[in-house]
Amino acid sequence: MKHIQSQQVPSDIVREPGAKNTLIKRLIDTTDGADRFVLSLFEMKPNASTPPHYHEWEHEIFVVHGSMQLLLPAEDRSVNIQAGDVIFIPRNEPHGFITGGDQTCQFLVVAPTERPPIRNFFMSEEPYQFEEPAGSRN
Amino acid sequence: MKHIQSQQVPSDIVREPGAKNTLIKRLIDTTDGADRFVLSLFEMKPNASTPPHYHEWEHEIFVVHGSMQLLLPAEDRSVNIQAGDVIFIPRNEPHGFITGGDQTCQFLVVAPTERPPIRNFFMSEEPYQFEEPAGSRN
Repeated sequence: MKHIQSQQVPSDIVREPGAKNTLIKRLIDTTDGADRFVLSLFEMKPNASTPPHYHEWEHEIFVVHGSMQLLLPAEDRSVNIQAGDVIFIPRNEPHGFITGGDQTCQFLVVAPTERPPIRNFFMSEEPYQFEEPAGSRN
Repeated sequence: MKHIQSQQVPSDIVREPGAKNTLIKRLIDTTDGADRFVLSLFEMKPNASTPPHYHEWEHEIFVVHGSMQLLLPAEDRSVNIQAGDVIFIPRNEPHGFITGGDQTCQFLVVAPTERPPIRNFFMSEEPYQFEEPAGSRN
């Protein structure tokens, strides 16, 4: 049994192409013995984005705090998301997340541990960006 | 893509042997296309329990609201759990949850969709109990 406070889990900067002002905490990972699915907490600062991408695995999402927009480029629309919302993104469905200047968002993502060969299709040619928060990253 | 507010998902009474005053919302289920893992929200009322049991699949847990005790009968101890806590329970590790008279708790559980043949070892000979809440179950 592993028991930890999420507040104590260190944050990493999300470094995918085009990602901006987004952190990840790997709450339960393969090193804990999780050999089928892993649980992560994403934290989006104001003006953050994980730009549209798709991959051969699914996401199950629960929004813990705040609000954001879910981008669905294949449907040419976006959806307002808030705390308490649940999202299931099937395999290969393009998706992205953004926050506005007055928004922050924390959301849990469950993804499978054993993935097909990694082919992550990012639609941005920008590098990632991250402005160090004033306080601690935890 | 499925998007729903967890508040709108109907609650079922947990009817396992010995379970008491506990509800479950199946947030993302096999009917949504989740063919590897499912996401549920458990709600424990005051004086609730999911009595000690074990099974051949793991749990990944995030506590959204409130507090409870995690029972670990194999270690003859219990652990205080609160909002923001993360718990990984490996396969076959006995565990249970209880709330006191002044506690409630809501926690997310991720479990695999494809389980080994169901062998769920409950250590209670009591039937489940549930006192209908005064308000809606949602």
